[in-house]
Amino acid sequence: MMKKSMILYVLLAFTICGFSQQTGNLRVEPMFWWAGMKNPNLQLMVHGENIADTKVDLNYPGVALTSVTRVENPNYLFIDLKIAPEAKPGSFTISFLSKKKTVASYLYELKAREPSSALRQGFNPSDVIYLITPDRFANGNPDNDAMPGMKELPNRADKDGRHGGDLRGIINSLDYLHDLGFTAVWLNPVLENNMTRTSYHGYSTTDFYRVDSRYGTNDEYRELNDELDKRGMKLIMDMIFNHCGSEHWWMDDMPMPDWINNYPEHKITSHRRTVNQDPHASEIDKREMSDGWFVPTMPDLNQKNPFMANYLIQNSIWWIEYVGLEGIRQDTWPYPDKDMMADWTKRVLEEYPNFNIVGEEWSLNPAITSYWQLGKHNADGYQCYLPSLMDFPLQHAVSSGLSTEEGWNDGLIQLYEMLANDFLYPDAENLVVFPDNHDMSRFYTQVGEDADLLKLGLAYFLTTRGIPQIFYGTEVLMSNPGTDDHGIIRSDFPGGWPGDAVNAFTGKGLSADQQDLQNYLKTIQNWRKGQNVIHTGKMKHFVPQDGVYVYFRYNDKDAVMVVLNKNLESKNLVTERFAEMMKGYQSGTDIISSNQITNLKSFSVPARSAMIIQLKK
Amino acid sequence: MMKKSMILYVLLAFTICGFSQQTGNLRVEPMFWWAGMKNPNLQLMVHGENIADTKVDLNYPGVALTSVTRVENPNYLFIDLKIAPEAKPGSFTISFLSKKKTVASYLYELKAREPSSALRQGFNPSDVIYLITPDRFANGNPDNDAMPGMKELPNRADKDGRHGGDLRGIINSLDYLHDLGFTAVWLNPVLENNMTRTSYHGYSTTDFYRVDSRYGTNDEYRELNDELDKRGMKLIMDMIFNHCGSEHWWMDDMPMPDWINNYPEHKITSHRRTVNQDPHASEIDKREMSDGWFVPTMPDLNQKNPFMANYLIQNSIWWIEYVGLEGIRQDTWPYPDKDMMADWTKRVLEEYPNFNIVGEEWSLNPAITSYWQLGKHNADGYQCYLPSLMDFPLQHAVSSGLSTEEGWNDGLIQLYEMLANDFLYPDAENLVVFPDNHDMSRFYTQVGEDADLLKLGLAYFLTTRGIPQIFYGTEVLMSNPGTDDHGIIRSDFPGGWPGDAVNAFTGKGLSADQQDLQNYLKTIQNWRKGQNVIHTGKMKHFVPQDGVYVYFRYNDKDAVMVVLNKNLESKNLVTERFAEMMKGYQSGTDIISSNQITNLKSFSVPARSAMIIQLKK
Repeated sequence: MMKKSMILYVLLAFTICGFSQQTGNLRVEPMFWWAGMKNPNLQLMVHGENIADTKVDLNYPGVALTSVTRVENPNYLFIDLKIAPEAKPGSFTISFLSKKKTVASYLYELKAREPSSALRQGFNPSDVIYLITPDRFANGNPDNDAMPGMKELPNRADKDGRHGGDLRGIINSLDYLHDLGFTAVWLNPVLENNMTRTSYHGYSTTDFYRVDSRYGTNDEYRELNDELDKRGMKLIMDMIFNHCGSEHWWMDDMPMPDWINNYPEHKITSHRRTVNQDPHASEIDKREMSDGWFVPTMPDLNQKNPFMANYLIQNSIWWIEYVGLEGIRQDTWPYPDKDMMADWTKRVLEEYPNFNIVGEEWSLNPAITSYWQLGKHNADGYQCYLPSLMDFPLQHAVSSGLSTEEGWNDGLIQLYEMLANDFLYPDAENLVVFPDNHDMSRFYTQVGEDADLLKLGLAYFLTTRGIPQIFYGTEVLMSNPGTDDHGIIRSDFPGGWPGDAVNAFTGKGLSADQQDLQNYLKTIQNWRKGQNVIHTGKMKHFVPQDGVYVYFRYNDKDAVMVVLNKNLESKNLVTERFAEMMKGYQSGTDIISSNQITNLKSFSVPARSAMIIQLKK
Repeated sequence: MMKKSMILYVLLAFTICGFSQQTGNLRVEPMFWWAGMKNPNLQLMVHGENIADTKVDLNYPGVALTSVTRVENPNYLFIDLKIAPEAKPGSFTISFLSKKKTVASYLYELKAREPSSALRQGFNPSDVIYLITPDRFANGNPDNDAMPGMKELPNRADKDGRHGGDLRGIINSLDYLHDLGFTAVWLNPVLENNMTRTSYHGYSTTDFYRVDSRYGTNDEYRELNDELDKRGMKLIMDMIFNHCGSEHWWMDDMPMPDWINNYPEHKITSHRRTVNQDPHASEIDKREMSDGWFVPTMPDLNQKNPFMANYLIQNSIWWIEYVGLEGIRQDTWPYPDKDMMADWTKRVLEEYPNFNIVGEEWSLNPAITSYWQLGKHNADGYQCYLPSLMDFPLQHAVSSGLSTEEGWNDGLIQLYEMLANDFLYPDAENLVVFPDNHDMSRFYTQVGEDADLLKLGLAYFLTTRGIPQIFYGTEVLMSNPGTDDHGIIRSDFPGGWPGDAVNAFTGKGLSADQQDLQNYLKTIQNWRKGQNVIHTGKMKHFVPQDGVYVYFRYNDKDAVMVVLNKNLESKNLVTERFAEMMKGYQSGTDIISSNQITNLKSFSVPARSAMIIQLKK
């Protein structure tokens, strides 16, 4: 920690040269806060020309100014406040004084919290998440495609350009998504990415407190959440603590030399992520991994700097509270400083104990992914409070298992064997499971554009343990044949733009296969909404045999039998082997086909398809 | 547990029909025991015609007969003794009485233990183990190639036949092995395998208390140990608790119906070993894995039967104490009942706290192998006391890493990434590391008969963490080109048979490459003997770059730098990157070439070779 005591007030004798700060030019972040947060501490970052040369004053019942820290750059002040539990919502002026005169001021507001804000329920296994790349989903407001001050102009002809999708488009699509049975949306980052080019993906933040104006406004982001709430749906925000965009405003005027790692060298990370777990890793390899830049346009934030850490942590809490989020997806999980990430997750869960956060640790090794999960006892003593991980190991196993021929180590056994690793996780049920996402080939492409395999995989993800996440456009067979170019993977959703020949929202121009898939998801997902046995039931599975994988979800009251037949012909399934799970059950209903199964002892499973059988006593 | 109280003595009124038991026909196992063992309990299995119809009597100070159990088969009795700590070595008669007359008796001996027997030091990272397939190494006594009562006759022309190797041959070779720098030998099983065919491998035990007479006698086995002891070398016995041979004597007269699993169905195991860890595994899959037969000639022992469990546990302790073993290699680790295996390891370590046992869990997933290790905290609460595992994951990583071209995920990075998983092990330093063994292609074949890659790999295994194990014949480039037939992999060691044209022991007929490899191993292994820094030092490694992998073994006093250059050309190594490990060191000696390195800042590493550099301050 930096010494805070050293510069609590400026020396009155200090001669201020060229000081002409106006209220309007001050940047104060977080720009407002709330009364009644559990953590009483709040650290404001103030940015303004020579602001360090002022004395800070404020006066509000229950709010104490505990310290003011000046750093190497005189254009910054860090103000620590302690907000007593009894402090009431309201506003107060923070004055910046020079020679006893106010030279700048900021009206700081403590807002009232929503009732039960602290106890909000995060996304969980009762949900199915729809992942949207906002620039590529629906252009609800063509007026904001090009915006004043934004460097990159729209160009729908450029696969890496801005296409005009926005929050309004998403808001307009919520009935469609609700109808399909989705209960949560995760948007790729919506914060300002005012970069010269290739900024549509959103992972180059240039302002941590502002929605990119080409997507809409902060208010529209809240409106999206309100509209989701009306439909009982949840909002998950994509956050990036590892880096910002190279055109972020502070890159021209950094508070301190160690604000950004490897600056100005721009040294790129080694991407050798196992240094986080490896007991034999060298210090230089740890530094080169954690402190290197993700790519040359993404400066690496130094989370070891306590002011940076506070900045990011408060920013995340600000968005949860401001928008009403039910979850966070944290980008590039293993790259930021791991101790800071443990602190962050702890602080978020202290503030919102039922919240959920999912981290992107892109490893195919469940020993690595499970290392981070809340409740894991690691040999090195590291303890994180991250409730959920993206289940990349399972994604890979399913993709490979469906695409390869059945064999001793290949095919459905890969799904089975990967799930066997669940002993590593303190809470495998809370993992996010997914067929694909914005960073990999679309699942339909992964399975060789075989719609039956796609459906088999989707049935699996919607009934296995975990929280399913589906990438936008999967429901209409979007694909990226012959390329894994990200700009193609994230193509425009059909019907999202005025004049689109095909419209997935209305059904106009969809092929029979596309309509079939929409209906398939609609059936399973709407059924799934009411199934406690899927949300919280246990799982029991049986070694796949003859290209058929059978597993059960069950609790004290109910049981669902899932049969995945990967064969190109139908199979007669004799169920004696599953007796331990089927005792007492007399019949069943396949919720996909609505067919009744009156003889559970043996029945036919159609070629290359899934049955999801609700068992009845 | 079976009720023990039910039949403590036979009813005196019982009419004994056809009872004519003679002392000499009784089988009592263990045939003797020791005074002064930590565990006072001893359970004798007595086998004799209608022996259950007798009353058991004995009288010896400090030995109490606590129970006699009769089971379904009247030809068996299980006698529980409690041996008080003060019981002296000596002999006593166990009498079997019918109508108050002794109809059979057995002179039971309690031997005196060797001093410090309990505190014997097991094999450990100071050792290098030489693995021998006894039938295939050296035929020291041609007179025992064919033996009375043994069904299979020698046939050296048959790759799957008996070739005549024996304990005498191994005893005769100990100076050779000691000279090469080996400090321990592990023999594939030497117990009687009196099977009709393919019994040379030793994994079909037909008598748990007798060395196969074609290898020698129990006494010769002790002699081998004595000869090893004279040279400061250790003996590791291969044991198999999972199964016996289908021609084991008890298969004709089983004590109880549940002595053998799946009898008489002979159902084969599913080999789906992950059921041991999988929280979702079904009961039927667990049974089919654990209780199925390994192969049709290997009946599956029911370790859940407490008499069987005792039989096996006592058998292992008997061999440790009788022969003077320093270690056990346990076959097919995940197949026997896992709770019994935990009990077994606990009991062995209670009796011999410094002993070592290594389990064969043939999984490439270190999360699975580490599950079994002593000290692991498993989420399911399972706790085993197995000190060591065969490091199959690392074996595969090295083989693949040396054989594939360098790439982001391929080549030396595979060695690096696998070692990063050491965070999973409570004690990775105690794993047995090996380039190959009797069940897989020879390492020279795995690396495409590239002697330089072979040497690179051997240098790695001899300097990485763990206990190296080398398969016999590796030192003279034994290979199995074009096949992975086990009979070929386990070919005869050159020089082990009279008249062999090539003799690895004397050097006669060896190629320059073979001689070079013998010298290579001799140099490294004899150097290694004195290197505490290798035995107990820590490891630190650096991400491989440009086909060069650098790691250090170090402690407070010493440091050894290992450089593996996989390239086909020499490399100039600039060492600035390794500064954190090289601080204070001024020069070094490559112990392979004996070359001095006077400038540690940069030096040349020869093409496709290893340097093992002892650093000097």
